[in-house]
Amino acid sequence: MVFWSNRRLPRPEMPRLRPRVAPTALAKVDFTELVPEPVPFLGQAAYIQLEFFESLARSVATAPTLSAKEGLSRAAGGALRQHHALIAELRRLGVEPVEVMAPFAPAAERFRLASAGADWYELLLGIHVTAGMLDDYFSRLAEGLPGELATRVRAILAEDEASAGVLHDELFAAIAAEPGLADRLALWGRSLVGDTLLIARSALRASDSRDRGADVEPVFTELIAAHTRRMDALGLTA
Amino acid sequence: MVFWSNRRLPRPEMPRLRPRVAPTALAKVDFTELVPEPVPFLGQAAYIQLEFFESLARSVATAPTLSAKEGLSRAAGGALRQHHALIAELRRLGVEPVEVMAPFAPAAERFRLASAGADWYELLLGIHVTAGMLDDYFSRLAEGLPGELATRVRAILAEDEASAGVLHDELFAAIAAEPGLADRLALWGRSLVGDTLLIARSALRASDSRDRGADVEPVFTELIAAHTRRMDALGLTA
Repeated sequence: MVFWSNRRLPRPEMPRLRPRVAPTALAKVDFTELVPEPVPFLGQAAYIQLEFFESLARSVATAPTLSAKEGLSRAAGGALRQHHALIAELRRLGVEPVEVMAPFAPAAERFRLASAGADWYELLLGIHVTAGMLDDYFSRLAEGLPGELATRVRAILAEDEASAGVLHDELFAAIAAEPGLADRLALWGRSLVGDTLLIARSALRASDSRDRGADVEPVFTELIAAHTRRMDALGLTA
Repeated sequence: MVFWSNRRLPRPEMPRLRPRVAPTALAKVDFTELVPEPVPFLGQAAYIQLEFFESLARSVATAPTLSAKEGLSRAAGGALRQHHALIAELRRLGVEPVEVMAPFAPAAERFRLASAGADWYELLLGIHVTAGMLDDYFSRLAEGLPGELATRVRAILAEDEASAGVLHDELFAAIAAEPGLADRLALWGRSLVGDTLLIARSALRASDSRDRGADVEPVFTELIAAHTRRMDALGLTA
């Protein structure tokens, strides 16, 4: 997964699509300094969306109500559209998407299984937490892609707002209805953070000998802060 | 599931979108004589598409190759679009889709489980055979819907051509590669026909005391003929 380079392509200032996290003293990283190699970046991002689709489809199949099925099927359709839109970007670059995605499949599948949880509620929180963190993260990294590709990829990754709403609403209602659920889900949510950060870090291996880990530490802090707000909104202690 | 009426709305001649079956001496039924009640018709059709989506999503999750995942994920996206397009037609009629679909859920879910098969190949053939027959069938019934609704619903149901191609191609390649598979799948394909015709018939209960079974017998003959051609194309004895 070594696909980062130091080359700094000249590019115009990109407007941020939206501020994803509150500005803090820590949020000093200029992501345009990090230049992801477009092909493996898109391959990993596309495969991760496919995993979110599979998890969401499973949540549709096991949903306890038809109305939950409806909302979640829309979220599944959204993840699938994101997957196919990223695939289309790979085709535009003249590469075969299946070959590009293949190296990322084993880790992404292990990650999906590890975040699937023991029941439907844990599955939903697993998707909410991991997709929330990783879509934010890939969207930030996409700022460093060359030219118009950055804009297009960020627009693709921003599409999951509606899904996040569906997941939040289903979880919120379930937590309100079942007193013991909050504690169990709070624990589960905390346990997901480590694996998610590992996947995020795997997208950051430097292609030179210099370890870029230190450069992006504040971004991980931001991701965790956004995670805490997401859990707070559900009344869960992060 | 009693939702058929004898009322015959005046409507212009509808062009057939495409000839689904070769014309035979048996194919004499004028489907515009059968007037399905739009709301339950759309509810059952929408729920069945959701079941096809769930089966296709499962085939994505268990696909042995990434390239199969790709093709099948497109087919899953197609079934989901069909489901949501039918739901949108229900909303246009001013009804709550979840309430309308609910009565059809138990039978449709039993049907999905019964046609899921023992492994990935049986799952694929299960979708190919049952979606092939039921999409044809609902498309024929849709001819009797009032006015523009008939055209729109037939266009929605015609969208699965690409999916059928993906399923055919994956099965064809697998059968060629694995000598014993053809016999097992031929047997499995035959066993699916009965359950599929039962689901088809459940959409046809007359709302009056007259049994319409006799009127549509030739259509069932057509469905079986189309099924035979589908199996033949895979080199399987129907």
